[in-house]
Amino acid sequence: MGSLEKERTTIGWAAKDPTGFLSPYTYSLRNTGVEDVFIKVICCGICHTDIHQIKNDLGMSNYPMVPGHEVVGEVIEVGSDVTKFKAGDRVGVGVIVGCCRQCSPCKSNIEQYCSKKIWSYNDVYPDGKPTQGGFADAMVVDQKFVVKIPDGLAAEQAAPLLCAGLTVYSPLNHFGLKKSGLRGGILGLGGVGHIGVKIAKAMGHHVTVISSSDKKRDEALDHLGADAYLVSSNADAMQKAADSLDYVIDTVPAHHPLEPYLSLLKIDGKLILLGVISKPLQFVSPMVMLGRKTITGSFIGSMVETEEMLDFCKEKGLTSQIEVVKMDYVNTAMERLEKNDVRSDHCNVWHIQPSQ
Amino acid sequence: MGSLEKERTTIGWAAKDPTGFLSPYTYSLRNTGVEDVFIKVICCGICHTDIHQIKNDLGMSNYPMVPGHEVVGEVIEVGSDVTKFKAGDRVGVGVIVGCCRQCSPCKSNIEQYCSKKIWSYNDVYPDGKPTQGGFADAMVVDQKFVVKIPDGLAAEQAAPLLCAGLTVYSPLNHFGLKKSGLRGGILGLGGVGHIGVKIAKAMGHHVTVISSSDKKRDEALDHLGADAYLVSSNADAMQKAADSLDYVIDTVPAHHPLEPYLSLLKIDGKLILLGVISKPLQFVSPMVMLGRKTITGSFIGSMVETEEMLDFCKEKGLTSQIEVVKMDYVNTAMERLEKNDVRSDHCNVWHIQPSQ
Repeated sequence: MGSLEKERTTIGWAAKDPTGFLSPYTYSLRNTGVEDVFIKVICCGICHTDIHQIKNDLGMSNYPMVPGHEVVGEVIEVGSDVTKFKAGDRVGVGVIVGCCRQCSPCKSNIEQYCSKKIWSYNDVYPDGKPTQGGFADAMVVDQKFVVKIPDGLAAEQAAPLLCAGLTVYSPLNHFGLKKSGLRGGILGLGGVGHIGVKIAKAMGHHVTVISSSDKKRDEALDHLGADAYLVSSNADAMQKAADSLDYVIDTVPAHHPLEPYLSLLKIDGKLILLGVISKPLQFVSPMVMLGRKTITGSFIGSMVETEEMLDFCKEKGLTSQIEVVKMDYVNTAMERLEKNDVRSDHCNVWHIQPSQ
Repeated sequence: MGSLEKERTTIGWAAKDPTGFLSPYTYSLRNTGVEDVFIKVICCGICHTDIHQIKNDLGMSNYPMVPGHEVVGEVIEVGSDVTKFKAGDRVGVGVIVGCCRQCSPCKSNIEQYCSKKIWSYNDVYPDGKPTQGGFADAMVVDQKFVVKIPDGLAAEQAAPLLCAGLTVYSPLNHFGLKKSGLRGGILGLGGVGHIGVKIAKAMGHHVTVISSSDKKRDEALDHLGADAYLVSSNADAMQKAADSLDYVIDTVPAHHPLEPYLSLLKIDGKLILLGVISKPLQFVSPMVMLGRKTITGSFIGSMVETEEMLDFCKEKGLTSQIEVVKMDYVNTAMERLEKNDVRSDHCNVWHIQPSQ
C-alpha cells in the first residue's frame, strides 16, 4: 500500500487480457477527496461475476482490470466532509462506488437502479480514471458507498454479504417478505443461493431448496439448515408442493422454464429473478393471473439496505461457509470456482487476503 | 318471471349448441334459500367472454346455456338469514356466484381466487344444478355474491362495472395504485380498456392509451379523456415514453411482446396482465431485474372490492359509453360485438333489457 506521505500507489492483482490471468499490478489512487475514505483492504470475496469480467465474457472488459467487489478493509484516512467513518473503522465496499445523485432512483436511495451508477471495477469515474476493485491493497471510495462493518461480524464473514447477501436481502426486504412465518423457495445453490438459505432462515422462514438434481440434498439440509429439498424433475414432489410457497428466489443464471416455479407459489406469491439471462424466459398469462402471482427481479441492493443487512446478519449470528486463501492463490481459486471444484459445504465465495 | 306463488320458473335467452344462437328457454330456479336473494333482472351487460362461452371456443360449454355476468336487478324476495338486502333494493351480480369458503383465498376475502369458485353460468352448483346467467328475467343468488347498487348509479351504468370495471379496479387497488398523481398506461381499448381509462382517470392518474395503430386516437383522447396516445409500432414515440409509467394495464387477449411495455415502466413499475393468453409470453430477465419491475396479472376482483368500486364510481360520477338494446336484439348485438361493429365511441359492453 502506498503510504500517506509518498506518491499514492497501490498494488492490485489485475487481469491484463482476456485469459483472465491475474498478476501484480501497481497503479495510482486518487488523493483522498473531502467525501472520500481511504481503505486498506483486509479481504475480498470472489464471485462468478469476477470470472466473467476478467475473461471478457460480456465483451465489455477493459484491461488492466483489478476485480473484486466484496471488499472489507480498515479506514486509514478520511476526507474533511466524512463524518460517518474514522481511521481504524472496519468498513465494507460492494458492487457500486458512484451514482448520479440526481435521478429518481438516486433521490429515492435506491442508487443501484441509477442508470449512471459506477461499478467498483471495469468502469470509469467521471474524470475518466478507471475504477479498480478489491483484489488490492487499498481503495479510495466515496463515503456514500462505504458501510461500517458491525463489531462482532468477522471481516471474512462480512465480505460475501456485501454482494451475495445483499442480493437476497434486498428483494426479501423490498417485497415485504422479511417477516417470520413465511414459506420460501431458493432455486439454485450457488453463492447467492447458499447465502439466500441462511438469510431466509434467519428471517424465520420455512426454506425449501429447489434443485435440478439430488446432488445438493445433504448440503442444503444438513449444512445450510434448509427445511426441505425439492428436485425440480420429480413431478410428484413438485405437484405435492404446488401452491405452498410465498416466494421463490430464483438464482439460476441460465435459461430455464418458469412455470414449474410459478406453480409452487401460493396466491399472491412472488417469483424473484436474480440471474441475468439473455435468452427470453416464458410463461402463459393464466399462470400469473389466476393467482395474482408476480414475476419480478432485483439487482443487488441499496446502501441503506446494505447497512440494515449487515446489522441483521450480525444480530442473527449468520455465518457463511467460506474458504480463506492468500492473494497469490487467486488464479487457482478462480479456476476451481469456474470448474465448481469447491467443497460442497462451502459457499462459492472465496476470500482473498491482500498481499501485504 | 315465475311469480312467488306458482312454480318458480324463469325465461332466459339460451344457446342450445355451439352456433351460439340464443333463443328463449324456460327453466326452473331454486327456491329462495335462507342465504338467497331472488332477483328480477333489470339489465345485463354483454362481454366478449359470453361469445366465447356460447360458441364453445374453450371446449367447456354445456347447453342450454344462458350467458350474462354483468347483471343488475331488483330484489323481489330474500331468505331469512339475509340482512344486507330487502325487497325493492337494486343489486348487482357479477362473474361468480359461489366459492368453497374454506380455502385460504376464501378466508382472505379474495374468493375470486378460490379453486372451487362457481361461475355465474356454464357451471354447476354442488347439488348438480347448472348455473344460468343474467340474460334472463330472474336469478336466485347467494347473498355473498350480491352487491347493492349505490343510489344515483344508473342500472345500465352499473352493469359493465361488475366485470370490466372490477377487473381494472381490483389490481389498481391491490397493487397500491389507487392513489392520485400516478402515470398509467392502458394497453388495448376493448371493453376492459375503455373502462380502464375511465377508472384510472377517476383515480387522478395521467393516462396513456397504448394501441397498435392510430385508429383509436380520437376515441381515447376526445371521448374517453385519456391524456396521451401511444402507437406501439412508433419506435421514436415509444423511446420517448421509456421509463415514464408507474403501471401498464395490459388488456390484450392475444399473444404479444412484453418488452416494449416493460420499457415504458419506471423503476418498480408494474405490468398487469388481464388477458388469458395460452401461447407463452416472453421477456429477458434484465428487463425486470434492472428496474425491479413486476410482471403480474389479476383476475376480476373480490366482492369487497366490487362494493368499494361501485361506491368509488358513484362518487366520481364515472359513466361508460354504452348502447342499450332489447333482449330480442341479443343475437344481432353478439354478432356486431364479435365483428367489432360497435360505434367507436361506445364501450364494447351492451345492455340487454329483459323480456318482460
